Amino acid sequence: MADEVRVLAFAGSLRTGSFNRSLLRAAQALAPEGMRIEIFDIGEVPLYNGDVEAQGNPPAVDAFKQAIAAADGLLIATPEYNHGVPGVTKNAVDWASRPPGNAPLGRKPVGIIGASPGITGTARGQSQLRQAFEFTNSYCMPQPELLVFKAHEKFDGEGNLTDAATAEYLGRYLVALGDWIRLFAKA
Amino acid sequence: MADEVRVLAFAGSLRTGSFNRSLLRAAQALAPEGMRIEIFDIGEVPLYNGDVEAQGNPPAVDAFKQAIAAADGLLIATPEYNHGVPGVTKNAVDWASRPPGNAPLGRKPVGIIGASPGITGTARGQSQLRQAFEFTNSYCMPQPELLVFKAHEKFDGEGNLTDAATAEYLGRYLVALGDWIRLFAKA
Amino acid sequence: MADEVRVLAFAGSLRTGSFNRSLLRAAQALAPEGMRIEIFDIGEVPLYNGDVEAQGNPPAVDAFKQAIAAADGLLIATPEYNHGVPGVTKNAVDWASRPPGNAPLGRKPVGIIGASPGITGTARGQSQLRQAFEFTNSYCMPQPELLVFKAHEKFDGEGNLTDAATAEYLGRYLVALGDWIRLFAKA
Amino acid sequence: MADEVRVLAFAGSLRTGSFNRSLLRAAQALAPEGMRIEIFDIGEVPLYNGDVEAQGNPPAVDAFKQAIAAADGLLIATPEYNHGVPGVTKNAVDWASRPPGNAPLGRKPVGIIGASPGITGTARGQSQLRQAFEFTNSYCMPQPELLVFKAHEKFDGEGNLTDAATAEYLGRYLVALGDWIRLFAKA
Repeated sequence: MADEVRVLAFAGSLRTGSFNRSLLRAAQALAPEGMRIEIFDIGEVPLYNGDVEAQGNPPAVDAFKQAIAAADGLLIATPEYNHGVPGVTKNAVDWASRPPGNAPLGRKPVGIIGASPGITGTARGQSQLRQAFEFTNSYCMPQPELLVFKAHEKFDGEGNLTDAATAEYLGRYLVALGDWIRLFAKA
Repeated sequence: MADEVRVLAFAGSLRTGSFNRSLLRAAQALAPEGMRIEIFDIGEVPLYNGDVEAQGNPPAVDAFKQAIAAADGLLIATPEYNHGVPGVTKNAVDWASRPPGNAPLGRKPVGIIGASPGITGTARGQSQLRQAFEFTNSYCMPQPELLVFKAHEKFDGEGNLTDAATAEYLGRYLVALGDWIRLFAKA
Repeated sequence: MADEVRVLAFAGSLRTGSFNRSLLRAAQALAPEGMRIEIFDIGEVPLYNGDVEAQGNPPAVDAFKQAIAAADGLLIATPEYNHGVPGVTKNAVDWASRPPGNAPLGRKPVGIIGASPGITGTARGQSQLRQAFEFTNSYCMPQPELLVFKAHEKFDGEGNLTDAATAEYLGRYLVALGDWIRLFAKA
Repeated sequence: MADEVRVLAFAGSLRTGSFNRSLLRAAQALAPEGMRIEIFDIGEVPLYNGDVEAQGNPPAVDAFKQAIAAADGLLIATPEYNHGVPGVTKNAVDWASRPPGNAPLGRKPVGIIGASPGITGTARGQSQLRQAFEFTNSYCMPQPELLVFKAHEKFDGEGNLTDAATAEYLGRYLVALGDWIRLFAKA
């Protein structure tokens, strides 16, 4: 690992005005010294299909897996749909977990956050997503956790994070994520 | 409900030779008197995108939601990927759960089954998928449950279910599913 | 089932001042016409031990299982501990699920609610508890769901539910639970 | 950390002949050079009760928390009851997670294994238990995982692990757990 911690981030929502995309842009702006956050758009990653994969990964999948491999850690901002992880979020992880292209998720540190308009702040979606990373042998940071509830009250119409308490907490979250990633880099 | 119970089935895998597609074809053949199972191919259902939805559902989504609305119950055969429900399976449910087009999942009886080469037979994938149907107010049959483990030993190269014990159990599962669906139809 | 729906309720907390005990007392007071809620105190139900069970159920376990068998449905108010169902809540269900004494949970309608001081209102605890009732072939009502978050703002020092919106929602929840229980009684 | 890795182990079953107790005894015998496994019997840990805790921890709880604090890592062998973590297992974790007595679970490495007579080998029980350790900020090893299915075929009548493949896998599991614990000790 270079001196700078490189974090690959993606949002589990394809909607342009997604709170979770906005949350990642806020994270970019709030990244502490020594951390660079790159946002990957999973919009071109297709639905997983083993027959397609057998013919070779689609370009967006290749790009996604290479971006993961090149990063020191991941940051995922996921909505919650129907009490669970959205198909969109999980599908990207399903592609990334596959052996061709060296399964870049193994031993990769991961931070999971999420924003939603409801009161539970994606709690159940995050729990399901964490289970995926047990299988892939990735290292999910257990605490702190960031559940942005009532997200519509915390971002303005342009998707700027305007809630000071959330911004401050997000800043501390990123410091903890940097420490978590460095812990494994030293190993 | 007509005298005949109409079940809409779909497999949460896009692979042509999927064990879960094969399992649904076996279910069609084993359906008891008074039950008709129609298989819907979710291959054309795109990744969920709220911006796309706001412009009107893609044709495959409309067809999927109408097929659900026209059915008395659902039967889902899901793989397990990465200790959880595949993005492909969940994504179809995420579309179907959305309010435009009358959210056909509400009060719909659902059976969940699954096949996998491993020993746990999709147990964790099924558990996550059940959680989605709490939110949609669908009625998942709790028992019996059907976990087809070591699936590669139970289907032949053409995808025919050749394991007699599994076929017999599947037949009993479908009888129970029919009773479960009728229970709510009478309500 | 008699004309009156008999609901057996228990709280998954042994603390005298528990919000979940208070929530059940509020439910008793708000029960609609035609529903009677009896509260069972699980404080004497010991930790599950198969060796003890083999010698015969402890009296509190016998009483608990008989009370379940005599009821038309269950109402469980559970805290959330450590992102999941408390050991106290689950232990009571583990005893009740055991075959001696006729496993009274089978085909029993169940409502799950919960209160906690945090913002997620026991969401994750409730999700884990629902999974138990898949195995026992009990019928958990999927919706509505009742997550009493920031519970310390909704009860007074004597444990009276003072939040009008929560009381109103709880009343509607109980009407729905009565309908859910009657649905299976007719079957 | 001393040169030797000290692992505190406990089984989530109170039955004398429990497969999970037997699994821990096998782990003791198979512990690699440089690892010592001490088994703690949670049989005297009572059901969690906040009123009792407020008067001071029962002696068994104090002993349990001190044993955790003194260990470099944990090894938990859990059954699965009713598709989830047993109340017995979770109750011990609930006590250990409480702040008095310095909450020894924080930053503690944890390995979770389990044995059951069924085919899923406690998969769902282990998944639920892992969720608890997100909240306590403990570090669960994601892989390898050890699911001892059809346990009655793998232990003899005295509880000796007689299945060579399981013994060999358990040995490799313990080496991996030792590496996992050392990783955090260096941090």
